[in-house]
Amino acid sequence: MRIGILGYGNLGRGVENAVKQNPDAELVAVFTRRNPADLKINSDAKVLNVSEIENWKDKIDVLILCGGSATDLPEQTPKYAKMFNVVDSFDTHARIPEHFANVDKSAKEGGKVGIISVGWDPGLFSLNRMYANAILPEGSDYTFWGKGVSQGHSDAIRRIDGVLDAKQYTIPVEKALQAVKNCENPQLSTREKHTRECFVVVKEGADKARIEKEIKEMPNYFSDYDTTVHFISMEELKANHSGIPHGGCVIRTGVTGANKEHNHVIEYNLKLDSNPEFTSSVLIAYARAIYRLSKEGQSGAKTVFDIPPAYLSPKSGEELRKTML
Amino acid sequence: MRIGILGYGNLGRGVENAVKQNPDAELVAVFTRRNPADLKINSDAKVLNVSEIENWKDKIDVLILCGGSATDLPEQTPKYAKMFNVVDSFDTHARIPEHFANVDKSAKEGGKVGIISVGWDPGLFSLNRMYANAILPEGSDYTFWGKGVSQGHSDAIRRIDGVLDAKQYTIPVEKALQAVKNCENPQLSTREKHTRECFVVVKEGADKARIEKEIKEMPNYFSDYDTTVHFISMEELKANHSGIPHGGCVIRTGVTGANKEHNHVIEYNLKLDSNPEFTSSVLIAYARAIYRLSKEGQSGAKTVFDIPPAYLSPKSGEELRKTML
Repeated sequence: MRIGILGYGNLGRGVENAVKQNPDAELVAVFTRRNPADLKINSDAKVLNVSEIENWKDKIDVLILCGGSATDLPEQTPKYAKMFNVVDSFDTHARIPEHFANVDKSAKEGGKVGIISVGWDPGLFSLNRMYANAILPEGSDYTFWGKGVSQGHSDAIRRIDGVLDAKQYTIPVEKALQAVKNCENPQLSTREKHTRECFVVVKEGADKARIEKEIKEMPNYFSDYDTTVHFISMEELKANHSGIPHGGCVIRTGVTGANKEHNHVIEYNLKLDSNPEFTSSVLIAYARAIYRLSKEGQSGAKTVFDIPPAYLSPKSGEELRKTML
Repeated sequence: MRIGILGYGNLGRGVENAVKQNPDAELVAVFTRRNPADLKINSDAKVLNVSEIENWKDKIDVLILCGGSATDLPEQTPKYAKMFNVVDSFDTHARIPEHFANVDKSAKEGGKVGIISVGWDPGLFSLNRMYANAILPEGSDYTFWGKGVSQGHSDAIRRIDGVLDAKQYTIPVEKALQAVKNCENPQLSTREKHTRECFVVVKEGADKARIEKEIKEMPNYFSDYDTTVHFISMEELKANHSGIPHGGCVIRTGVTGANKEHNHVIEYNLKLDSNPEFTSSVLIAYARAIYRLSKEGQSGAKTVFDIPPAYLSPKSGEELRKTML
């Protein structure tokens, strides 16, 4: 399958690498809003300005949208679903129904398939929530994130006056995690589930006490959490906090039996050295799936809930049954 | 959906309980090879001899086959797939391709859908192996079972002369599990992955040393493992070892990045108080899925790889996207 990428940030570069690990995929073009001459990529694909994208309608099987959920994807995914089979990683949970409807309308008009909200959360975590709920109708759901870097929270710190750079880690509270796994069905507040740890580089002479207070009291981002702030040098930030690890787990606990006397724990756990590279790997697997659906004549918007698992794999049904069932 | 059960052992009773937790399912009939008058069940369903099953062709939407994989299912699933939509938990991995072909032929003849090898392994573990392989093409797979009761190994001990009863636990080796989770990609022998712990009740005056030796040297079952044998009283066995817990985990570790420099761990973990009741809960969710596929006009054999996840849930696509994506 011939892959196109729109947007060459962390996610776009991740898709470029992931394509190399999938022999049935080929990266043919990278589209950017920047001047293509300024973009240095790590493969033989063409680099083009996004204004040329319509000319590639018949030369790309799946276009992977690597923009952000805040402003890029709500506009791009419906727009390009008219011309291409598309995959996005839209992750604004509250706006998913609206985004789905927009993509569905466009994709049906164009006779294409568009899959939204692909990645690990939403994505693999959603799948595991859904499977576990279908299997254990009586139970409780828990999602923990981390230990990992939250780009949104890191950015929020960087916007504070006097801050040069920052990295924020979201960390699950071990005691809460254990209570869940022990089937104690705890009711957990935001503060009881996760803590936040910040590594901050400030301008010379900046008022550290004021910055720490501003971080800890920031509404939505930090005020509901126990937050730790470490002031470090730029060298230390670069040496020890340049990665983008993440992960987390989805847990459902539930009961069965004549008297609901038996407890069960279903846990799905991810530990990722690189959040964007792992997300990219999920995007490529779902690109394969929608390419197949498209060849079967399907059109419209899909989510991970709609895709038969076998469609993600390059192996045939026979091979899968023989080797993985 | 109207559910029928064939076979009323641990699994059949589990399905009976699971139906009560799913408001869209109703148990209408239990079929047995025994005298129906001898069977006391825990619901209002009819109890009938299996010889009457053909009369129920139009009164049952999905027949759940609760027999064993050794001799029951290879014969029953193809036979009844001609008359009913069927679900089984066939778990003889090596014979799955042959079983699939037989069920596929029958189900297509009868215009029915038959799904085989549903449960947690094969079943949910298979799904997780498949998803993880599609997402991380370069990596290693590991499956650990336990801590849990192996019925096959418990039965093998019971067949030894002088043994009255026994329970065998399969236990993953913690050191191996940690090496896998640390992305060390260990090559693990059978002995390095699991240990076996046996609780054995013997006849008065039985030769315990001989029995212990027979257990530990039993080919296929114990000789490749480090095995511990405890001789206990019947009272202790009943008090402390009457449950049928099980569980385990499927782990895939893999690499991404320009230089394969990033490690990722995908782990799926089950901790189950009752192996047959949990398996039954999976069977009901897949019964829902094949009932839907059948109403859409599909026929033939399926596995968990073929079923779009949303088909397992009683919720609509819209509800799922809103609440679980």
